[in-house]
Amino acid sequence: MSKIKDYLEKVAKVTDETLERVLPSESIYPESIHKLMRYSTFAGGKRIRPSLVLATHEACGGVFNNENALLTIAAIEMLHTFSLIHDDLPCMDDDDFRRGKPTAHKAFTEALAVLGGDALCIEAFEILSRTGRVDMIQEIAKSLGTKGMIAGQVVDIESEGKPVTLETLQYIHDNKTAALIRACVRCGALLAGVSDEALAKLTSYGNSIGLAFQVVDDILDEESTTEQLGKTVGSDREKGKATYPSIVGMAESKKIARDLINQAWKDIEFLGDKGAILHELAEYIITRIN
Amino acid sequence: MSKIKDYLEKVAKVTDETLERVLPSESIYPESIHKLMRYSTFAGGKRIRPSLVLATHEACGGVFNNENALLTIAAIEMLHTFSLIHDDLPCMDDDDFRRGKPTAHKAFTEALAVLGGDALCIEAFEILSRTGRVDMIQEIAKSLGTKGMIAGQVVDIESEGKPVTLETLQYIHDNKTAALIRACVRCGALLAGVSDEALAKLTSYGNSIGLAFQVVDDILDEESTTEQLGKTVGSDREKGKATYPSIVGMAESKKIARDLINQAWKDIEFLGDKGAILHELAEYIITRIN
Repeated sequence: MSKIKDYLEKVAKVTDETLERVLPSESIYPESIHKLMRYSTFAGGKRIRPSLVLATHEACGGVFNNENALLTIAAIEMLHTFSLIHDDLPCMDDDDFRRGKPTAHKAFTEALAVLGGDALCIEAFEILSRTGRVDMIQEIAKSLGTKGMIAGQVVDIESEGKPVTLETLQYIHDNKTAALIRACVRCGALLAGVSDEALAKLTSYGNSIGLAFQVVDDILDEESTTEQLGKTVGSDREKGKATYPSIVGMAESKKIARDLINQAWKDIEFLGDKGAILHELAEYIITRIN
Repeated sequence: MSKIKDYLEKVAKVTDETLERVLPSESIYPESIHKLMRYSTFAGGKRIRPSLVLATHEACGGVFNNENALLTIAAIEMLHTFSLIHDDLPCMDDDDFRRGKPTAHKAFTEALAVLGGDALCIEAFEILSRTGRVDMIQEIAKSLGTKGMIAGQVVDIESEGKPVTLETLQYIHDNKTAALIRACVRCGALLAGVSDEALAKLTSYGNSIGLAFQVVDDILDEESTTEQLGKTVGSDREKGKATYPSIVGMAESKKIARDLINQAWKDIEFLGDKGAILHELAEYIITRIN
């Protein structure tokens, strides 16, 4: 797995460099909001979404350092960060820690956390527009709105403390987590200019690893230590949130995750050796629990 | 003034028709968020921003019913609504009423108000992308981010209960209110394809009426009845917010508003008769206090 770790490190570096370049400096007035935006964006995420964009882009013949790909990964990390800041708010999941650091509304104020999230969202679209590619804006906006991430978040919140069917849990995970991950893969493919057939297979790959990612997150929420996770263990259970282990059991959850990764591997067989990094990225998602 | 009232009604009708067409139906799952988005978007705004887009577009030779102009006005109203929903939140201005109706977090929940605002913002950019015009996305995103509306909102909140200079108040108003209004005028001009010289004059017009709009709002906050205003009179003062009347006095505030409108009229003299509606729109902003 050292190859994938090297790749993730390489992507993290270029993601941070691009974010450094496109995010407003902390010294620009009003400083507080720019500090919050950078505090949350540089909070130590693994940059898995940028890795999926760039790995797909390269697998489909794109160049690693392509400027439009770099703008896209910066925008996607800003949008992902925006969603985390708002998710953590007292009126939402009410989390005090994220990746071992105080959440934005704890480190700053609640008002600034709302506005900082808003600003990251707005400015991400400004950065995406610099690519000149409205198809990318469509792709990403659709994955985030009420046919994607927001829909998943709404149903997640409205289901708290209620009995939840596996079907509803799948809906939540598919929208809240998988939609943006699928969009990352599709953006990498669109930037490289792939055929409709290849795009369909890569979309299926994105679906599978996106759902696997959230199933693994559910498993980690039960099994890890607080230190490993950077947030309170079992916090989903305490909030009355349904998870895969709570509905189908731990063993079946691990089997589902494994099956999803196997499906993802099948989807990218057509890439041959060029799909090596995408193959390893799928495995990396699972190894977080092995 | 009946001519301008007819124009505003005509724009309100076409704005509502376009919003009806682009906003997700209330019957789409998850229904709650779609209900909130429509509740707040159709809360009875005067559609002044769409009027500025369409009037500028027409004054510069564009066609009233141009599809890209319609998509733009719908997106702008969604973005304006997103900003109002988040402004009204308990951690922000903590307002219970807006245009005489309970605010979104009062009529629904705080979590849904955060997410509904987010969704309106995200989906507005999706709708803008349908125009294929990345320059419009740039224009609008810049007017809303931390070089525009959000910056004004941050300084507004951080200045509450503190002595505020006229310079700071101008910064707040210029960013929180004037930036988007200026962007509306510029978008109308960009859609019609004007010269750089005309764009500069129209930008100045947008600046002047944008600032006048907020000065008039400050005056109305002091002078109107609660019924006329749809929110509590003097609520800015109670919150310890600086206003033009609180800093320069009521008479001077009215003079400033009048001078700004006179400046706006000068800026659009080059349009001749074609600028009649823009001329009347500027006057309409002032007549709200006369």
